[in-house]
Amino acid sequence: MAVEEKKIFDLIIIGAGPAGITASIYAARKKMDFITISKDVGGQTVWTGDIENYTGYQFITGPELTAKFEEHLRNYGIPLKQDEEAVKIFKQDNLIEVQTDKAQYQARTVIIASGKRVKELGIPGEQEFKNRGLTYCATCDGPLFANKKVAIVGGGNSGLEAALQLIKIASHVYLVQRGSELTGDPIMQEKIYASDKVTVQTNTRPTAVLGDKVVSGIRLKGPEDEKEVGVEGVFIEIGLIPNSESAPEEIAKNQWSEIKVDNRNQTNIPGIYAAGDVTDVPEKQIIIAAGEGAKAALSAFRYLAQKK
Amino acid sequence: MAVEEKKIFDLIIIGAGPAGITASIYAARKKMDFITISKDVGGQTVWTGDIENYTGYQFITGPELTAKFEEHLRNYGIPLKQDEEAVKIFKQDNLIEVQTDKAQYQARTVIIASGKRVKELGIPGEQEFKNRGLTYCATCDGPLFANKKVAIVGGGNSGLEAALQLIKIASHVYLVQRGSELTGDPIMQEKIYASDKVTVQTNTRPTAVLGDKVVSGIRLKGPEDEKEVGVEGVFIEIGLIPNSESAPEEIAKNQWSEIKVDNRNQTNIPGIYAAGDVTDVPEKQIIIAAGEGAKAALSAFRYLAQKK
Repeated sequence: MAVEEKKIFDLIIIGAGPAGITASIYAARKKMDFITISKDVGGQTVWTGDIENYTGYQFITGPELTAKFEEHLRNYGIPLKQDEEAVKIFKQDNLIEVQTDKAQYQARTVIIASGKRVKELGIPGEQEFKNRGLTYCATCDGPLFANKKVAIVGGGNSGLEAALQLIKIASHVYLVQRGSELTGDPIMQEKIYASDKVTVQTNTRPTAVLGDKVVSGIRLKGPEDEKEVGVEGVFIEIGLIPNSESAPEEIAKNQWSEIKVDNRNQTNIPGIYAAGDVTDVPEKQIIIAAGEGAKAALSAFRYLAQKK
Repeated sequence: MAVEEKKIFDLIIIGAGPAGITASIYAARKKMDFITISKDVGGQTVWTGDIENYTGYQFITGPELTAKFEEHLRNYGIPLKQDEEAVKIFKQDNLIEVQTDKAQYQARTVIIASGKRVKELGIPGEQEFKNRGLTYCATCDGPLFANKKVAIVGGGNSGLEAALQLIKIASHVYLVQRGSELTGDPIMQEKIYASDKVTVQTNTRPTAVLGDKVVSGIRLKGPEDEKEVGVEGVFIEIGLIPNSESAPEEIAKNQWSEIKVDNRNQTNIPGIYAAGDVTDVPEKQIIIAAGEGAKAALSAFRYLAQKK
């Protein structure tokens, strides 16, 4: 890059899922001088199935809600850098530098709303049946499997929480755990073992998701043999990875690499906020991420108003 | 009341604004055994004008969004006690008691989402012109007054924040303060005095809001005389009062009587959560309250799951 006087933005928003989009809408309404950097629009909403818990919409699909979000975003003329990805964020001389794979920007405040990515199994059928019976979110999609047989892959807390939710909904739950025992909270394990609706299969791993247009089964390799089990739903609950690698080194994270925020989305670094699934707020929900994005933008606005 | 074995609910939700409604939707989806107690549905959303910042709806009015919220609520068959008001909440023997003006209930968890009420001026024209040019929320309604003259009543932080927002939007701002000087943060005062778009009127109080169908002016009584000023918008920013009086005595509140919550809506009392405008989360926004309500319900669910 040639040496030039660099523009200093009020705010840079990293990510355009529900948190980043809502932060962008609020920043635009506050007439802040900002840009939003994100490879995609909609985040994990895009691959969510049916949504019945976004207050105000009784029923909408993930792609439909994503389209509404995107329209809302475009309507405000938000400066979206969509072919770039933030790779490094750091604070220097009271300004925050954001390096992308293509350029470098400076701002007085930054909102990290870069979300999470799912851990995938990497087995045949996984890509093909996404949103066709295969899902990564029991809270979002559980209610769609009323009185159906389902398999949950993962015996940690995510898997056990998914199982406790699905016991109430599905006709039967196969809980598949690679190791020799479940690893989630004992109190949840007790409830699961007490239910006659759950078959726990330890020392077992899935080798393929089966079906024609939608999921009809899963192939499981157990300690003794490999067999096919008929299910209409497969929940992959082996965890999510926060996209927090680009955050400054000195940012406070919890043991799962999620960025710690207070109840107004401030991180431990003044001027740097975080919102949505990348934070230590435990719930992965669209309406929550949207609310957190709005809070983060208004916190950044307040910070600048008191500073400048 | 006759002596009888009392039912113990999983959860009682106090309030049915955006926070209480969203908490109710989430509680219903989790199949929690709960009731929602609220005199009204929609909370402050009902008297909000045009809404352009509820992500997913580019434009919707307060009453329209309230109708959608209510429909969403009714669709889930949520047990709403609508002719009752919670008057006292207290914890006893690990259970939480909720006394209303009509009955007494017990639950393992409670979400306080009782919102705020505005301080009103109590002058002629105030009731008549609500949402017809007179509003209590600059963040919500400010953008509707582009290039118009407006008056803001209140020289504390709310009034100054409103003024800083409206400087960017309105053609001129009259800032009316009863006392001899502004009381909000000095740094905001400096910016306001530096703007040629603001007329600060101290030792002045409004005596009437004027207009035909919509606001056309405000009558102001200053230190020397009483006169009419032509404005199309009147912002009452003399504060809001959290409806936190019914909360347990030992609950932690800030100096404005707002209930303190952490980033997952827990108060200092285990099993008691709070969400929305009654909390110390600083921003008064529908999307934020909705997100906070969802978080509170999921926190309560998690608490019960780990307990029972």
